[in-house]
Amino acid sequence: MEYSTFGRHVAVDTWGVDFELLNNAEWLQSQLVEAAEVCGATVLSVQSQQFEPQGATVLVLLSESHLSIHTYPEKGFAALDCYTCGETVDPQLAIDYLVSILKPKNVYAKKLIRGMGEFQVETPEFQQAQLVK
Amino acid sequence: MEYSTFGRHVAVDTWGVDFELLNNAEWLQSQLVEAAEVCGATVLSVQSQQFEPQGATVLVLLSESHLSIHTYPEKGFAALDCYTCGETVDPQLAIDYLVSILKPKNVYAKKLIRGMGEFQVETPEFQQAQLVK
Repeated sequence: MEYSTFGRHVAVDTWGVDFELLNNAEWLQSQLVEAAEVCGATVLSVQSQQFEPQGATVLVLLSESHLSIHTYPEKGFAALDCYTCGETVDPQLAIDYLVSILKPKNVYAKKLIRGMGEFQVETPEFQQAQLVK
Repeated sequence: MEYSTFGRHVAVDTWGVDFELLNNAEWLQSQLVEAAEVCGATVLSVQSQQFEPQGATVLVLLSESHLSIHTYPEKGFAALDCYTCGETVDPQLAIDYLVSILKPKNVYAKKLIRGMGEFQVETPEFQQAQLVK
């Protein structure tokens, strides 16, 4: 059996997110698992780390690659990335779900199309309704 | 205590890598841990998955963010990414170490500078000596 190396890798910085949301590794883990399921990915395992005095990392290992979050609650900042191989799972759906629940004031993002030779770099659009201004 | 949100995120596609290297999750895990140490990062935990009939994923959770590999041995393909926050750890060093041991025939890469507002996108250079033509 062979699988397609085509992959989409979305990296997103979110700003202006509530401290308490970003400082709860257990809650973030449940939300990343939910996000993976929303985009149709299969979760194989999860690691998470609660940092002191604040901050969290969650890494979700997917059949299709990975989903991650790294948070700086004191800055209202979280860095996400979702990389999925194949055509059937769209990582943007997982990112959109996470943005919808984190409710950042501002978002910066890049999407890399990879696994096909030279990378293509795109800038995903986020609907204004997803952001709390 | 506050930490810098400045981060460097290097994504690399390697092609023309030996099947056996890419199909050994246990060996890849040891090499990713070594790569993290080479760049001065601190490894907190690791998840890995050996796929059937072939393929592997390793995700390394770092104090500074993460390091990953996803392999398609049947295509001679491995997708790596290393994201580190702060100025002191350079993820390119971890990537360079992994390229040096995987010995790909071809490499495509992008580096995202993030955590500072709009992403900057750069294209890392790999020395010809690192690639086996």
